[in-house]
Amino acid sequence: MTVQGVQGYNPRTGGTYREPVPATPPAEVDRLALAAAEAFPVLSGLALAKRAELLELIADALDAKSGTLIEIADTETALGVPRLTVELKRTTNQLRLFGEVLREGSYTEATIDSPNPDIIPPRPNLRRMLQPLGPVAVFSASNFPFAFSVAGGDTASALAAGCPVLVKSHSAHPNTSVATAAVLIETIAAAGLPAGVFNIVYSTPAGSQLVKHHAIKAVGFTGSTGGGRALFDLAVGRPDPIPFYGELGSVNPTVILPGAAAAQAEELATGFAASLTMGVGQFCTNPGLMFVPESIVDALGKAVGGANGGAMLTARMRDSYESTVDGLSARDAVELVAVGEAPEGGWTVAPRLYRTTVANFAADQAKLSEECFGPAAIAVTYSDPAELLPVLAKLEGTLTATVHAAEEDHDAAGTLSAVLARIAGRLVFNAWPTGVAVSWAQHHGGPWPATTSALHTSVGATAIRRWIAPVTFQSWPDALLPVELQDANPLGIPRRRDGVLGTH
Amino acid sequence: MTVQGVQGYNPRTGGTYREPVPATPPAEVDRLALAAAEAFPVLSGLALAKRAELLELIADALDAKSGTLIEIADTETALGVPRLTVELKRTTNQLRLFGEVLREGSYTEATIDSPNPDIIPPRPNLRRMLQPLGPVAVFSASNFPFAFSVAGGDTASALAAGCPVLVKSHSAHPNTSVATAAVLIETIAAAGLPAGVFNIVYSTPAGSQLVKHHAIKAVGFTGSTGGGRALFDLAVGRPDPIPFYGELGSVNPTVILPGAAAAQAEELATGFAASLTMGVGQFCTNPGLMFVPESIVDALGKAVGGANGGAMLTARMRDSYESTVDGLSARDAVELVAVGEAPEGGWTVAPRLYRTTVANFAADQAKLSEECFGPAAIAVTYSDPAELLPVLAKLEGTLTATVHAAEEDHDAAGTLSAVLARIAGRLVFNAWPTGVAVSWAQHHGGPWPATTSALHTSVGATAIRRWIAPVTFQSWPDALLPVELQDANPLGIPRRRDGVLGTH
Repeated sequence: MTVQGVQGYNPRTGGTYREPVPATPPAEVDRLALAAAEAFPVLSGLALAKRAELLELIADALDAKSGTLIEIADTETALGVPRLTVELKRTTNQLRLFGEVLREGSYTEATIDSPNPDIIPPRPNLRRMLQPLGPVAVFSASNFPFAFSVAGGDTASALAAGCPVLVKSHSAHPNTSVATAAVLIETIAAAGLPAGVFNIVYSTPAGSQLVKHHAIKAVGFTGSTGGGRALFDLAVGRPDPIPFYGELGSVNPTVILPGAAAAQAEELATGFAASLTMGVGQFCTNPGLMFVPESIVDALGKAVGGANGGAMLTARMRDSYESTVDGLSARDAVELVAVGEAPEGGWTVAPRLYRTTVANFAADQAKLSEECFGPAAIAVTYSDPAELLPVLAKLEGTLTATVHAAEEDHDAAGTLSAVLARIAGRLVFNAWPTGVAVSWAQHHGGPWPATTSALHTSVGATAIRRWIAPVTFQSWPDALLPVELQDANPLGIPRRRDGVLGTH
Repeated sequence: MTVQGVQGYNPRTGGTYREPVPATPPAEVDRLALAAAEAFPVLSGLALAKRAELLELIADALDAKSGTLIEIADTETALGVPRLTVELKRTTNQLRLFGEVLREGSYTEATIDSPNPDIIPPRPNLRRMLQPLGPVAVFSASNFPFAFSVAGGDTASALAAGCPVLVKSHSAHPNTSVATAAVLIETIAAAGLPAGVFNIVYSTPAGSQLVKHHAIKAVGFTGSTGGGRALFDLAVGRPDPIPFYGELGSVNPTVILPGAAAAQAEELATGFAASLTMGVGQFCTNPGLMFVPESIVDALGKAVGGANGGAMLTARMRDSYESTVDGLSARDAVELVAVGEAPEGGWTVAPRLYRTTVANFAADQAKLSEECFGPAAIAVTYSDPAELLPVLAKLEGTLTATVHAAEEDHDAAGTLSAVLARIAGRLVFNAWPTGVAVSWAQHHGGPWPATTSALHTSVGATAIRRWIAPVTFQSWPDALLPVELQDANPLGIPRRRDGVLGTH
C-alpha cells in the first residue's frame, strides 16, 4: 500500500476538505532529523534574550495570520470561531510566557559552590546549570489544533529550551498544520536561523520513525493511552532510551460534598453541564466521573438533558464515543439519566449522563472508571463522604481532581485532598477542571496513565524542564564558562550560591 | 534450585566470610513492599524539620557504629580502612546535607500565582509544589559499600523526599548491608516511626520483584549497563511504568592538551596513575580513556608501571577485568605500554596502560571505547586537538569529561568543552574525575549509558528531585493547603510568587 497523504475533513458535514497533504517519505524524515541535529548548536547557542525574541516573533506572526488560521481550523475541527480565537491567543501568549521565562533566567538553575578543602569529601569550585538535550519530536493532539499542536506548548517550551523541533502533525487537522507550520518556517528563516530549527512531518509511520531516530533526543506527545503507550515503548526500547513525555488518558473525578449539593444544586448543575459539553467534551480535563449525593442527580440530569452536543473532531472519535456509551448503557448497575441534543448532520453526538451507586462503582471500578472521550459522565451516588476514600485511592492517575464544598464541608474536603493529591496533578476547589491557565504555578500532569512521567508538565513555565538536563563545570576558568555561570553574573539571573538563592 | 542465601567473601583471600545471609522469600518481599506503602503517609506527612531530624539521627547512629561497620566492610571489600573511613563520613555528611536541603525548603519549588481574570486564558489562584512519589526501591552498588549502598545517596535522598525505602542489597557485601540496615531500622524504630519506612531484601529475584511491585513507585540503581538495562526494561514495561534512575557505565574521557603535556608531564602522570588505581580502579568516574600528545606517553607508562593494583571486589569482576584487558592486548592497533604490580593472593589485579593512535581509535571506536571496570586505561595519541572533535562528539554518554590545559591551551579547551558538555554530566578542568563532592551544584549523571535519565543526578542536593512530582492546588482554601503553600509562608521558605523568586 502506498501512503497517499493525510486527508482533511469537515466534521460538520463529514465531507473532505481540500486535497490530501502528502505523507512525508522516510528519506525526507531522515533528512529533517539530521537538519535538526545540525541546527541544534545554533539554536542552543543563541543568547537567552535572542531566543526570547524568536518566540515573540513567532507569536506576533501567528497573531498576524489569525484570520486565515482560525478559518481553516474551524472548517477542519468544527470547534467554532469564538473558541478557536481564544485558543490561538492562548497559544501565542504561551510563546510569550516562555520569552519571559528565558529573560528571567532561573529556569537554568545556575548553581555555584565555592571550594572547601576541609569537608569530607573536599569540594572544588562547582558550577551547575541546565542545558538543552537536542532535537525534540512533538506529536500534535487532535483536540487543540493550536494550543497542543504545531505551535503549541510542547513546541514553544522545546524551542525556548534551545531544542530544534520536529512536529508530527495530527491527522485530524492537516491543513491547519500546514498553515501554522508555514508561519513558523517563514519566521525562523526571516530571523536568519537554519531551517532545521523547526520542521513538520505528515503520516503515522513518519512519527514512529522520528521516535526511533538517533538524532531525536526526547519526545512530547498528547493523545490516547493506546497510541501514547505504543510510542512510549518505542522510545524506551531504543538502544539509547530517550525521555517520552506523553499526556494520555484522564477521568478527572469530581466530588460534590453534601453541603455544596444542598446549598447550590442548580448552580452546580449548570456549571457541570457547561464544563462537560464545552468543545463537545473533547478535553483531557473533562469532568467524566462525578461523586455526588443522591439529592443533586435530578438537577444534573436536567442540565445535561438541556445541553447541546455537536460534531466531534473525527468520525473515529464519534464511533468510539457511541460505542463507549452503548457499553455503559448495557451494564445492569448503570442507569441512563439524561440525553441532551445532537445537532443534525456530520459527526455529531449528544451529551449523556449516567448514574450508579458508590457500591456498584466499587464492584466494577476498572470498567466504570475508563475514560469516555466526549460529553458523557457518570454520577456515582454516595451517602457519606467517608465511603469515597477507598474508591478514590484506587483510581488511576488523573490530570485533575475537583471538590465542591460549602463551609461546612471543609473538614471532609481536607480529608479528600490528602487522597486526591496522590492521584491527580491538579486539585480544583469550587470550580471546574476544564480551562487550564498558562502560568508559573500551573501543573498539567499526573501519575500514569494521566502522563508517562508524573514529574513533568506539558503546560506552564516548568514545561521547559522536560527538554533540559544538568551539566556541572568543575574548576573551569571563568572566561570559558557559559555566561550564566560566570562569576560576575553578567545576565543578572537568579542563582544559588553556596546553597543560598539570590542574584549573586 | 533453592536460593540458599547471599555468601560474603574476603577478596584478599578469596575465602568465605561468615554464614550466608538468607535470601528474602517472595512473600516477605511482598509484605515489606506493602508495609512501605502503609508507612508512606506517615513519613511524607512529617514536617520538613522532623524529616531533617530523622536523617541526622541516622547519620549520628552510623557514625557511632563506625568502628564495627568499617571493620566488616574492609573484610568484605578489601577497600582498606582509610578509604572506608572517609567513605562512611561522606555517607553521613550526605544524610546531613539532605537535612539542610529540607530545612531550606526550596526543593519543594513552592510557587504561587495570583488570580488574573483579564488574561487569556484567565488565571485562577494556583499554588504548586513538589511532593513525594511513594515507596522507592534502591539497588546498592558493589564499589561503595557505604556511599552508594544501604544508607547511601539514593536512600538518603528518597527518605528526605518522604519516600519509604526498600533496599536491594549488593551481593558483594551482604554482612556490611546487614549491619548498616540494622542501624537504620533501630533508629527509625527509636524515632517512633513505622518499620515500613525502611527495609532491606537479599537476592537477585527479590530485586526484580520489587521493580515490578505495584507498591513501588520509583527505582534507584547504580551498577553495570547490562544489569541496569534489564531492570530498566522491567520498570518501563510495567502496566504502570515507573521512573528508573540508573547510573550505568562511563568511560570518562580525559584530554591532556599540548601545553599542559609539555609543561607538567611528570605531575600529570603521577596524578593520572593515582586516579586510575585508587580503589583498584573500581570507580564509575575512573579515567579509562586518555587523549594525549605522543610526548607524554612514556611518563604515563612509567607512572602506571610503578603503581600498585590490589584485590577487586568480587571474583567475577577480577575475571571480567582480565578478560577485557586480554581483549585489548589481542588487538593489532593497540599496544601494551606498562603493567604495574599486583599483590599476592586473593582476587588481585595489576594496573595496565595501553596505547593507540587517534586514527586507529576512530576506526574501531565502538570497541575501544567500551568501559573497562578496573585500573586499566588506553592512551589515544593525537597531534592536533582538532583531530579529537569528531571522535569526542561520537562518544557515548559519560559521567565526566576532563581537560588538562595550560594557559596557551585555553582556546582549544573552550572548543572541546562545547562538545564535551553534550556527552558528559561533569566537566573537570586541570584535576581528575575521581572524587565526587556532595553539594548543591554537584551533578553525577549524563546521557545514556552513563545514566538512564540524563535529567537527574544520584549525587548532590538535587538528587532529591528524582522522588518528587508536582501537584497544583487551584483556588484551594488557605487552611486546607500544605503549609509550604499557605499564604503567610509560615515556614519562611523560598517561594516564587507571580514569577518572582523570594521568601514571600
